[in-house]
Amino acid sequence: MATLGDIGVSAAINILSAFIFLLAFAFLRLQPFNDRVYFPKWYLRNLRTDPTTSGTFVSKFVNLDFRSYIRFLNWMPDALKMPEPALIEHAGLDSAVYLRIYLLGIKIFVPIALLAWSILVPVNWTNSTLEDATKFSNVTASNIDKLSISNIPTGSQRFWSHILMAYAFTFWTCYVLMKEYETVALMRLQFLASEKRRPDQFTVLVRNVPSDPDESTSELVEHFFLVNHPDHYLTHQVVYDANKLDKLVKKKKKLQNWLVYYQNKYARKSSQRPFMKTGFLGLWGKKVDAIDHHVSEVEKLSKEIAAERERITNSPKSIMPAAFVSFKTRWGAAVCAQTQQSKNPTIWLTEWAPEPRDVYWPNLAIPYVSLTVRRLIVAVAFFFLTFFFMIPIAFVQSLATIEGIEKAAPFLKSVIEMSFIKSVIQGFLPGIALKLFLIFLPAILMIMSKFEGFNSLSSLERRSASRYYLFNFVNVFLGSIIAGSAFEQLGSFIHQSANEIPKTIGVAIPMRATFFITYIMVDGWAGIAGEILMLKPLIMYHLKNFFLVKTEKDREEAMDPGSLGFNTGEPRIQFYFLLGLVYATVTPIILPFIIIFFSLAYVVFRHQIINVYNQEYESAAAFWPDVHGRVISALVISQVLLMGLMSTKEAAQSTPFLIALPILTIWFSRFCKGRYEAAFVIYPLQEAMMKDTLERAKEPNLNLKGYLQNAYIHPVFKASEDEEDDEINDEKWENESVIVPTKRQSRRNTPAPSKISGASSPPSLPEAVQELPQP
Amino acid sequence: MATLGDIGVSAAINILSAFIFLLAFAFLRLQPFNDRVYFPKWYLRNLRTDPTTSGTFVSKFVNLDFRSYIRFLNWMPDALKMPEPALIEHAGLDSAVYLRIYLLGIKIFVPIALLAWSILVPVNWTNSTLEDATKFSNVTASNIDKLSISNIPTGSQRFWSHILMAYAFTFWTCYVLMKEYETVALMRLQFLASEKRRPDQFTVLVRNVPSDPDESTSELVEHFFLVNHPDHYLTHQVVYDANKLDKLVKKKKKLQNWLVYYQNKYARKSSQRPFMKTGFLGLWGKKVDAIDHHVSEVEKLSKEIAAERERITNSPKSIMPAAFVSFKTRWGAAVCAQTQQSKNPTIWLTEWAPEPRDVYWPNLAIPYVSLTVRRLIVAVAFFFLTFFFMIPIAFVQSLATIEGIEKAAPFLKSVIEMSFIKSVIQGFLPGIALKLFLIFLPAILMIMSKFEGFNSLSSLERRSASRYYLFNFVNVFLGSIIAGSAFEQLGSFIHQSANEIPKTIGVAIPMRATFFITYIMVDGWAGIAGEILMLKPLIMYHLKNFFLVKTEKDREEAMDPGSLGFNTGEPRIQFYFLLGLVYATVTPIILPFIIIFFSLAYVVFRHQIINVYNQEYESAAAFWPDVHGRVISALVISQVLLMGLMSTKEAAQSTPFLIALPILTIWFSRFCKGRYEAAFVIYPLQEAMMKDTLERAKEPNLNLKGYLQNAYIHPVFKASEDEEDDEINDEKWENESVIVPTKRQSRRNTPAPSKISGASSPPSLPEAVQELPQP
Repeated sequence: MATLGDIGVSAAINILSAFIFLLAFAFLRLQPFNDRVYFPKWYLRNLRTDPTTSGTFVSKFVNLDFRSYIRFLNWMPDALKMPEPALIEHAGLDSAVYLRIYLLGIKIFVPIALLAWSILVPVNWTNSTLEDATKFSNVTASNIDKLSISNIPTGSQRFWSHILMAYAFTFWTCYVLMKEYETVALMRLQFLASEKRRPDQFTVLVRNVPSDPDESTSELVEHFFLVNHPDHYLTHQVVYDANKLDKLVKKKKKLQNWLVYYQNKYARKSSQRPFMKTGFLGLWGKKVDAIDHHVSEVEKLSKEIAAERERITNSPKSIMPAAFVSFKTRWGAAVCAQTQQSKNPTIWLTEWAPEPRDVYWPNLAIPYVSLTVRRLIVAVAFFFLTFFFMIPIAFVQSLATIEGIEKAAPFLKSVIEMSFIKSVIQGFLPGIALKLFLIFLPAILMIMSKFEGFNSLSSLERRSASRYYLFNFVNVFLGSIIAGSAFEQLGSFIHQSANEIPKTIGVAIPMRATFFITYIMVDGWAGIAGEILMLKPLIMYHLKNFFLVKTEKDREEAMDPGSLGFNTGEPRIQFYFLLGLVYATVTPIILPFIIIFFSLAYVVFRHQIINVYNQEYESAAAFWPDVHGRVISALVISQVLLMGLMSTKEAAQSTPFLIALPILTIWFSRFCKGRYEAAFVIYPLQEAMMKDTLERAKEPNLNLKGYLQNAYIHPVFKASEDEEDDEINDEKWENESVIVPTKRQSRRNTPAPSKISGASSPPSLPEAVQELPQP
Repeated sequence: MATLGDIGVSAAINILSAFIFLLAFAFLRLQPFNDRVYFPKWYLRNLRTDPTTSGTFVSKFVNLDFRSYIRFLNWMPDALKMPEPALIEHAGLDSAVYLRIYLLGIKIFVPIALLAWSILVPVNWTNSTLEDATKFSNVTASNIDKLSISNIPTGSQRFWSHILMAYAFTFWTCYVLMKEYETVALMRLQFLASEKRRPDQFTVLVRNVPSDPDESTSELVEHFFLVNHPDHYLTHQVVYDANKLDKLVKKKKKLQNWLVYYQNKYARKSSQRPFMKTGFLGLWGKKVDAIDHHVSEVEKLSKEIAAERERITNSPKSIMPAAFVSFKTRWGAAVCAQTQQSKNPTIWLTEWAPEPRDVYWPNLAIPYVSLTVRRLIVAVAFFFLTFFFMIPIAFVQSLATIEGIEKAAPFLKSVIEMSFIKSVIQGFLPGIALKLFLIFLPAILMIMSKFEGFNSLSSLERRSASRYYLFNFVNVFLGSIIAGSAFEQLGSFIHQSANEIPKTIGVAIPMRATFFITYIMVDGWAGIAGEILMLKPLIMYHLKNFFLVKTEKDREEAMDPGSLGFNTGEPRIQFYFLLGLVYATVTPIILPFIIIFFSLAYVVFRHQIINVYNQEYESAAAFWPDVHGRVISALVISQVLLMGLMSTKEAAQSTPFLIALPILTIWFSRFCKGRYEAAFVIYPLQEAMMKDTLERAKEPNLNLKGYLQNAYIHPVFKASEDEEDDEINDEKWENESVIVPTKRQSRRNTPAPSKISGASSPPSLPEAVQELPQP
């Protein structure tokens, strides 16, 4: 068991590395040639001009103003300066509320830490159980353990203070959670209320439109809603199956990038035409002129794309049984989204349309029965992924040993027998196999969610986040506490009695405190500090900038700010809630480490959100019920584990006192669900009616139909439309360029000046495709 | 362990008693003076005239037509003759669908029994495990056990046939369940579609109306709905807190009954005025003239009632924060019921209004927070009731012993020392204590449901039914399989591992088969046969008839047909589903007994529904999702227990094959929920629009407002209105007597002639109060 000294050394190392990261960041961000990497958000909003375009040659790349280096930590107060309403304006509600998760952590754990340190630590410290044990046997106990519950003798009356504290912590956590839920719900409603007109306010997504032999899908939809919502129906858009077209467009874009690359190469060395080979990866095949080859390929693809577009718009088979139906009023849309249309509850399914840029198009056509089957398959697959993921990895690891490689590829024997390579293989390969899997895990979970059939990016991310949390809980939390793979745990849990399981885990918890302290420092301190350095985007930007960028537009394209990544980020935060709540009564010494994590992460992510990340969509904090629910579940887990631990401490009479805690907590969660969750799911009629009335008074002659007509068009149609080399100008999409209603209207009324008012908002998905480099 | 002979004796006894009950019924029902007890439904529908009013004196009371006795079992084919649509016309959809539960049992278990007997019984029979065991040890095995799974040696490959059969039974059960769900959903939709206009189609119950300092509740409701449903809002009725008035009216009715009794007594012996004492139970106090006393008491109460009515209608405090809001169209009501009105999801809660006669008035005013607290309290209370109910009973039983009584009441010592009384106390009292509790159990569960705050009688009954089923499962099913009280079981389960629990129960299951066979015969055969005799209503009717009845109307009042009692009846049927599914693979010999139960019960209840029961309300089979869900849960229980049993039989390799069964079953249940449940909860807009359009075309000048104005008035107001001795004629309720829309319109179009067309339907709750005997 680690001593205080060990922890100190580990802390020093991690603080040092965090400090180095921060220092490197402070240095790199001041260099003009990195400006687009560290401040892309401002570029996207046209609030910042490129420093590399002005000034002397050297000052274009290196910051020579030494005074700026002195204030190298200035970004921290800068990040904290922007008030919340401005932040919502600047980055959207999703990001602002995401930051509140860190604040929630601080709000919960600072009072808990104070209470725990002023009551539990003295209670634990003034015992001598571990000292006695050390005297009489060979058990070694560190000072950390003396501060934990392990130091209290079994059957002691002092455990009452822990039970009392468990109640205090639970009540405090629930209180903060409820207040926060209330605040966030209010913020969401205010945000929705303050928004300008948006197409999704008027639109409902209809899925599982039944097929009809006499009418086309479009006619059927129109007739159905004209009959059943006669006073409110306005227009609709059918959904085309454009997945193939999408692929072609992406392929074309890739080829165009290569074309640009070769053209740049040619421009630099104009004497020499670049050549390439047509075979696999350019390694073999016929040698051709690279520019000519790509030009002809791009042309071929353009024709294919045109043909495919023709096919999609003319063939009724490419119309999916889904449609976006728009209404004359928000009230009409709210009514349609919340009611059941048909006798058969599996057809004519209506739900709120996601924002146009939030729509996940490929999933819109999945029929009802298939959805339920997919859900079952994914549930089973996730179960196996969680509990059996070690099996394929162990298999890969066994292959990755010296013997495994020699067996599989005998001709490599002489190479790998070299001692350096041998040690690399033995030391790194098994770890890399596991690491690789863990890196791919979010992607695997995302694929699962996509397969399950959700139809908006936000819901995909939310579902992936809950799966990731579960995986973390089983494999990182339980896996660290109890040795052995998750599958072995599962086996032992099945064979244990229901009240043995919390005991087994509960007993092990105080012993693993030092491990988790180290974990917090590595993952939570140094890891967060590394986050701000953004090594990968930095490298990628400079590579792209060197090889591809020709125009200012290309450069904008090259900076990939990324987004918050709710599906990986949120479960990571939740893990700290879990640790904090579990250890609050057991080993309160862990709490300051967690508070430092929350504070540091809050500052870092606030900075990133202000300066870097660019959200793909805006769900208006629809994820908060998930966040709330996971903190509640962490609370219940902590209570059950405390019960288990207490019962081994021969404080069994405490069980009746502790059993009330999870019951009350679960009841509290149900209460909150009923009280607040509706605000995140449903658009109340009162609200809708209010906005409708206001709008009618303000703009009595609004052409809503024109506004909504083409709001929900597959982005690929918009993209291909814009390209000059596409001759076909299908009138169906003609008036598309007039309105691009995919932007958040609320962002337009930013107080800051913007160069082109129409382009002040960050590019949504379709626009990103529009802004392809021109050949 | 019982042998086949024992079972035979038990069967003989039960068949005999069932036969005696049926014979007694056949005899009693033919006597004219019992006619109203056995055919009340026809009287209520005015389709039958009283045989006691015509014919000779003797033939008024005794049936002298001996030929009718020969055909004494004729009621059975008679009961089966009426086709289902006619049955729905006659008794409502609830009753018709209730009968389908028995049919469902027959449909599920007849093929399962055939398959089990043709495959599993031979497989079990052709082993000699038990014979060998009998030879070598003192174990006695009956022939029944030779037919069960116990006869197969551990580790035998024959278990594969059981696993295969488990799959076959599961698929068959699921298939039948799905078909049945589909049929019932269709029946419900047809029933709702074929119905004539009913107030609840246009009405929504609004709860938790917020309080407003400037407006009364009534004004507030009107303004809110005029603003938020401007095109659809028609009218509304506030809910008065009439609980006190209700009590007074009931008290008056009771006094009037006594008055009638004394008047009848006086009329018979006109020389002598009846006297009574005013004290407790008429045992002491001043002696007064009974008729005068009651007349004055009734008058006093009438004045009190008038004052109370005055108070209610004038004081704003007696208006509860709830209202019935009616709309111009069904579409408008459907929209309002399915949507959220306000930003705050705990106020302005809307839901479909129950039928007027289905409303449970006292619960309409419970605020949201109180509801969630009540739910928690009831959940905890029900947990204790289920697992600890033996504790108070054991306490009462310990008091009810000889020593207990002698200690509590020493003066009774000489009496109870008599050997006869002693044996009665020792033999019966403890059993009676338990029996009394079990008789009161449904009432206790009903009180729990009422406390929980449901606002319709149908939902109260549904909730009580699920609680009763759970109680039965824990205390009767598990309690019979494993000895010991439920609390002891709970203790042992907590201390057992998760996979030990199904093992413990699974092993005990084949051993308890004979017990359950006896149980089925006693409860399911003789019990059902006893049901048809209706001993309690028979006695009550004759008592009332003798003491109270003066007019024809009184006589109608005296016959109390009762209703199906979903809250006790349905869990009782479900218990047979549970037994059948659990034993189908284990001891298939139990199946024929269950099939006989289902068939007998089907005939008996079909007879009762046609001739006796009079439903208080019509929920249009809203209970079917519950029925379906409980059969599914029985299926899952049977699968888990089979897994437990198999693993003790050293057929452990079977577990992976069996684990898929519960997963698939649970998935199936979720699929069905998504596919069909909406039909039982939601009124689809398409349907509403269709009926609206039809109605507009047929009756363009309908005065809907007049029709709906007073549909939802507390029954007590209607009742007191009708009485002649109530002078106050509050204009508020004046036009009430024009329309009594509490009747099911569908019953009016019965083909049979009826004396008074307006009174052809059975009295709903309010009417029952109207038809008080006049003093």
